[in-house]
Amino acid sequence: MKTKLDGHYTTNWEEVIADRMKEAKPSAIREILKVAQDPTVISFAGGLPAPELFPIREFREACEYVLTNNGQQALQYGPTEGYRPLKEWIAETVMKYGVPAVPENILLTNGSQQALDLVGKVFLNEGDAIITDEPTYLGAIQAWNPYRPKYITVPLDKQGTRVDKVEEVLKEHKDVKFIYVLPNFHNPAGTTLPLERRQKLVEIAAKYGIFIIEDDPYGELRYEGEDLPPLISLHKENVIYLSTFSKTLAPGVRLGWIIASEQVIQKLVIAKQGSDLHTSTFIQYIVYDICHRGILKPHVKRIRKVYRERRDVMLKAMEEHFPKEGFTWTHPEGGLFLFVWMPEELDAQKLFERAVKEAGVAFVPGSSFYPNGGGKNTMRLNFSCMPPERIKEGIKRLGKILKDELERVKK
Amino acid sequence: MKTKLDGHYTTNWEEVIADRMKEAKPSAIREILKVAQDPTVISFAGGLPAPELFPIREFREACEYVLTNNGQQALQYGPTEGYRPLKEWIAETVMKYGVPAVPENILLTNGSQQALDLVGKVFLNEGDAIITDEPTYLGAIQAWNPYRPKYITVPLDKQGTRVDKVEEVLKEHKDVKFIYVLPNFHNPAGTTLPLERRQKLVEIAAKYGIFIIEDDPYGELRYEGEDLPPLISLHKENVIYLSTFSKTLAPGVRLGWIIASEQVIQKLVIAKQGSDLHTSTFIQYIVYDICHRGILKPHVKRIRKVYRERRDVMLKAMEEHFPKEGFTWTHPEGGLFLFVWMPEELDAQKLFERAVKEAGVAFVPGSSFYPNGGGKNTMRLNFSCMPPERIKEGIKRLGKILKDELERVKK
Repeated sequence: MKTKLDGHYTTNWEEVIADRMKEAKPSAIREILKVAQDPTVISFAGGLPAPELFPIREFREACEYVLTNNGQQALQYGPTEGYRPLKEWIAETVMKYGVPAVPENILLTNGSQQALDLVGKVFLNEGDAIITDEPTYLGAIQAWNPYRPKYITVPLDKQGTRVDKVEEVLKEHKDVKFIYVLPNFHNPAGTTLPLERRQKLVEIAAKYGIFIIEDDPYGELRYEGEDLPPLISLHKENVIYLSTFSKTLAPGVRLGWIIASEQVIQKLVIAKQGSDLHTSTFIQYIVYDICHRGILKPHVKRIRKVYRERRDVMLKAMEEHFPKEGFTWTHPEGGLFLFVWMPEELDAQKLFERAVKEAGVAFVPGSSFYPNGGGKNTMRLNFSCMPPERIKEGIKRLGKILKDELERVKK
Repeated sequence: MKTKLDGHYTTNWEEVIADRMKEAKPSAIREILKVAQDPTVISFAGGLPAPELFPIREFREACEYVLTNNGQQALQYGPTEGYRPLKEWIAETVMKYGVPAVPENILLTNGSQQALDLVGKVFLNEGDAIITDEPTYLGAIQAWNPYRPKYITVPLDKQGTRVDKVEEVLKEHKDVKFIYVLPNFHNPAGTTLPLERRQKLVEIAAKYGIFIIEDDPYGELRYEGEDLPPLISLHKENVIYLSTFSKTLAPGVRLGWIIASEQVIQKLVIAKQGSDLHTSTFIQYIVYDICHRGILKPHVKRIRKVYRERRDVMLKAMEEHFPKEGFTWTHPEGGLFLFVWMPEELDAQKLFERAVKEAGVAFVPGSSFYPNGGGKNTMRLNFSCMPPERIKEGIKRLGKILKDELERVKK
């Protein structure tokens, strides 16, 4: 508990760390993102929205309006549940997807990341099992690791979660707490779960009395095809739904929301009260003002157009420059990412190092997204943050490295 | 795990809640604050800063400046550690209190409440003991309860923590993880720890190899006497220091900070990354702009003047209207609160109900601040949020109820 130093006892911090955090290390992806910040690097690494699309003028107007008309309220403490008019706006908006929500079903959070943490805090006992895709969203693993669950993974294919495998897992494992899925434009995989799989998944969950965490940060960013019903619209009582303003408005506001039954929201509110009292009142007032004025819908339309083009440019360049044999990748209908499976001989970490050094191109090696290890021959590519010309150039350079590395390992 | 309803299995949420949250209930204080929100009630209940003092014009200017000059950065994702220029500003500011900090010693958080939660997440194993005052800050108990520690309390007197009792506890208990103290203008007690007790406390902590959580949200709000050195300036390596912009600028920004050794900050950063990625970039840019322009110092001077007057008005009215025998209260040198110990026969919860109903006056019964129960004959009075005339009137009415209740119980 103590070490002697210069005649004083000082705390040995390594020893006093709680067990849950002993093994926690800074995520490998953060190191990658540091490399990718170099402006000379063509980065497909981060999950950043394109900052040139942020509605800065609208934010300025909203700040002016809120501070002129509601300054005292916007700067004061507020309720843990969140600013009611914004919750009403969200309730109205999700109606169009068939989600029957009232403000009592909604909790506003500091981005979806806090929603994931609160879910872990409220539901996870040490050793509980969670079913996730393989690969799955890294942020969820980071949020839940401190609660020390175990992850049981099911593979995904180009249509997302292999729902048939979920039932196999549930038959075998009796300690599953919940199933975590990203049905729309999966991070990192870029897949979208078809309607039949959605229906089958909520059926299986209901049959085994398991609930579902539906993570939907990208749902509004669809570039082709029809909107599909969220899982929560198919079985309201069994699904906890998460979404965010990060991808439609701006991530810097850190504002997301949870939709669930009132009983679940009440528990999450208690957890959030201990976690940070409430989300910034000021941010909630500003975002409400922007939403309320009807700015979000046309703004999202503009984002879709730009990202759709970037996705198309990336896919076309990959067709042209990536090796074919043993390579396969997703064709995302929306979102920010696509995922590449490569021949087993290729190591994405090594490729990353070569790509940055020799070609000035960054991506994220896929293994970070495998909760139980694996995925060494996979990578995630982001297409939202680079202009088309740089995407073309970056994919061309990356293709060259891939071909070269492929030849090297075959020798 | 499941109950059958209308032919569907639906989740029985009570059953799937994690053990850590099973007993968590909405805090009693929230119900009290709801009553106190009635504008006809004279409220000494909340811990709200006076909203008429919020620097709204300065916020408007800051929003305009930030969005015009740094809009893209301020709305984008940012580092978990926080916005570096703001950390540099904090480091410079705390220097005047003798705290030798560089940005690497600082983590920005969503108010002090998140700092408390992160401390719990990083350090508390189930069953670890924490030494706290009795009474102590309710928000700390709420933050830590999910990590299931036990609380060993030491009494406080009008000079704050009975440091002599801390050593007694440490001799007896070998499972103490840390000591939690609020040396300046304690919430709820309004006490300030004298220099000798500060020195003694860090000595004892060092002797037993225990670290200290120093919570200092009110340090800038001193109305009389000299600033005293924070504990962290007396023994940097053993102290984790928490503060916030909530009381000096505005609580609606939800912005606080932790100062600790670099090693501790690194662990807290990993925990925060899982909790919510980072605090709102936009909020950090705005608060930095306000701080950077030198607005905070004269603004805090203005707050001090107003709150000092309100404290004086409350203390004078209490002298005049409160019963004397068996009553004692603190004379706070700063902060927002004072604390009243009443004769054992009086029940503050019952008094609260009578005061609201018969006199339209609200306060917080002190028992909420006793982690292991007790304090039924105590109450916390806030003096920052009501104008002087209402303070006078409220204390007069409350005094009448107290005298009446005293007579009633003596019969």
